[in-house]
Amino acid sequence: MKKNILVIPGDGIGPEVTTWGKAALEKIAEIFGHEFTFDEALMGHAAIEVTGEPLPDETLEKARKSDAILFGAIGHAKYDNDPSLKVRPEQGLLKIRKELGLFANLRPILLFDELLQASSIKPEILRGTDILFFRELTGDVYFGEKSRSEDRNTASDLMIYHRYEVERIAHKAYQAAQQRSKKLCSVDKANVLESSRLWREVVQEIAKQYPDVETEHMFIDNAAMQLIKNPKKFDVVLTANLFGDILTDEASQIAGSMGMLASASVGESTGFFEPIHGSAHDITGKDLANPLASILSAALMLEIGFGLKEEAKCLVDCIDEVLKEGFRTHDIADQTTNRFKVLGTAEMGKLVLK
Amino acid sequence: MKKNILVIPGDGIGPEVTTWGKAALEKIAEIFGHEFTFDEALMGHAAIEVTGEPLPDETLEKARKSDAILFGAIGHAKYDNDPSLKVRPEQGLLKIRKELGLFANLRPILLFDELLQASSIKPEILRGTDILFFRELTGDVYFGEKSRSEDRNTASDLMIYHRYEVERIAHKAYQAAQQRSKKLCSVDKANVLESSRLWREVVQEIAKQYPDVETEHMFIDNAAMQLIKNPKKFDVVLTANLFGDILTDEASQIAGSMGMLASASVGESTGFFEPIHGSAHDITGKDLANPLASILSAALMLEIGFGLKEEAKCLVDCIDEVLKEGFRTHDIADQTTNRFKVLGTAEMGKLVLK
Ligand SMILES: CC(C)[C@H](C(=O)O)[C@@H](O)C(=O)O
Ligand SMILES: CC(C)[C@H](C(=O)O)[C@@H](O)C(=O)O
Repeated sequence: MKKNILVIPGDGIGPEVTTWGKAALEKIAEIFGHEFTFDEALMGHAAIEVTGEPLPDETLEKARKSDAILFGAIGHAKYDNDPSLKVRPEQGLLKIRKELGLFANLRPILLFDELLQASSIKPEILRGTDILFFRELTGDVYFGEKSRSEDRNTASDLMIYHRYEVERIAHKAYQAAQQRSKKLCSVDKANVLESSRLWREVVQEIAKQYPDVETEHMFIDNAAMQLIKNPKKFDVVLTANLFGDILTDEASQIAGSMGMLASASVGESTGFFEPIHGSAHDITGKDLANPLASILSAALMLEIGFGLKEEAKCLVDCIDEVLKEGFRTHDIADQTTNRFKVLGTAEMGKLVLK
Repeated sequence: MKKNILVIPGDGIGPEVTTWGKAALEKIAEIFGHEFTFDEALMGHAAIEVTGEPLPDETLEKARKSDAILFGAIGHAKYDNDPSLKVRPEQGLLKIRKELGLFANLRPILLFDELLQASSIKPEILRGTDILFFRELTGDVYFGEKSRSEDRNTASDLMIYHRYEVERIAHKAYQAAQQRSKKLCSVDKANVLESSRLWREVVQEIAKQYPDVETEHMFIDNAAMQLIKNPKKFDVVLTANLFGDILTDEASQIAGSMGMLASASVGESTGFFEPIHGSAHDITGKDLANPLASILSAALMLEIGFGLKEEAKCLVDCIDEVLKEGFRTHDIADQTTNRFKVLGTAEMGKLVLK
């Protein structure tokens, strides 16, 4: 198979982890006889520094021409500390999601048996958990009109949904539910928000087209609680953009660490694959980051982007193997025991590829 | 001390649990020689059934005249299943918060040693956790303009904050932080939302007036994760209305159960005290609800509403005692062992009062 892959390392730990996601793809191409060609582009703070723009036109052009995108992370302390700055790294990520029509963000909560102990949640609560989040990615309060009054004392963001936006992500989630255990939980705040009431109405309608799938509606506050109380009760979870952002980060504790979760954004054309962790400025450049989420992002690219199931499984199995052998990065090592061999980013990356 | 207390049982399990919050106040009055007089009023589905309104004028009048309000819960499956209904129970709760100017919602995460095992989170992660949430309660996307297009295919809610709204809740949170361990974490989504950027700017300014308090700013997605990863790192947490709704429900797992958490809403005048759990239609009328959150709401009324510290402590100690003796309601009993004596709502209520 021939594919053009665009690598966007981004900010913070993005470059150090993406190196390993890319290396994993190269290794897979070599083993399975595929031809992957790579290009690279700037986004976020890294792009602002060079071009003044968080998403330069050149990056967007390259993105449109590629078959899939491997992304790292975005964000920088400078902007977090000064909320009044007008040009911000995250605008790059939001714009590329919108421009490429990446309306469905899939976040599988993949649990490695070996990491049951790494979580703050009890292993007996976690064991057997298998959740697939469908987070809507190009609507909601992320993209509704923003405004700031002239005296700068009032600020607002419009939380808005259109029927077609809810329909298309709901269909994707229901189709996935049919392939899994035929259970779908839709999360909203319909007891307070009008946009959530539209969300719930539309999901109720779409549900009728999938009578074999059992639907549950849950309020976001309750979902945030149930997710850690009893994660096993969830299978496919369908949420709006903001609620999905919050729930999936929370759910990373189920997998032991943010450093273990990858996501696939799909929609109209090119797929976009990235770890769910952020730029983590505090550990940037210290060889402390966990490269596994980037390698798992590569695996998602192979599976969801290119339909290469066996190749994807190969990467996941390699990670499993390395964990079984007792190797860990800092975020997933239990510091209180000496049972684990704690590795830096690069050592872990190399080991998985071996 | 003479006080007029308004009891609003509300919907679902509201009435069954509020009985015990009220009984606790009566008992305290008797023991400590106070004179508490009680009145009762309707709100929510219960009020819609009788008057057609979720918050009848009579309830609001009684509320304004009382010294404190003990509330139960709100909500009903009928409305959850039909998002198109125009008159909804929750409007009653939102309206009374707004009308009484209850802009600050305090949610202490109180951890009973005896319940360390009841949580899905590991005891060693929980031990020593002591968090006080300040959730803004009369602004945000809860109260911004809602709209639905004529064809009903587009729906929106305005997420909006004014400087003065952020200032007044921030002052309350900082003042509390000064009395505690001088650490405050403000939660927002300033990397995406304009309203959050205003929030962060204002909190940064107010922070300068409290140089003895150490301030941290955290994104909501990260906070939802950190809260279960390492709850001990939080002390005072300051959040907007929606984020506070989500985080505090999530945090209930720290306390072992939603059935254990109370909240105090304060602001311009009369204080409003309620469990953070909802109406829980599924267990309504089955003598399964946990009355402790209502009794703890009564304790918050005594402490925060009336400044009666000793009386409040008396109630908390009684609960501690009963838990130490091995008594539990269903939500906090570990079903896999026989170590606990599992009680119904009424039995548990009676026992605490004894
Ligand atoms: C960086 C930020 C804009 C982004 C989001 O909120 O969507 C991130 O948290 C994510 O989840 O991909
Ligand atoms: C019932 C609902 C309107 C309410 C809220 O969202 O504020 C509840 O969840 C709460 O936290 O008090």
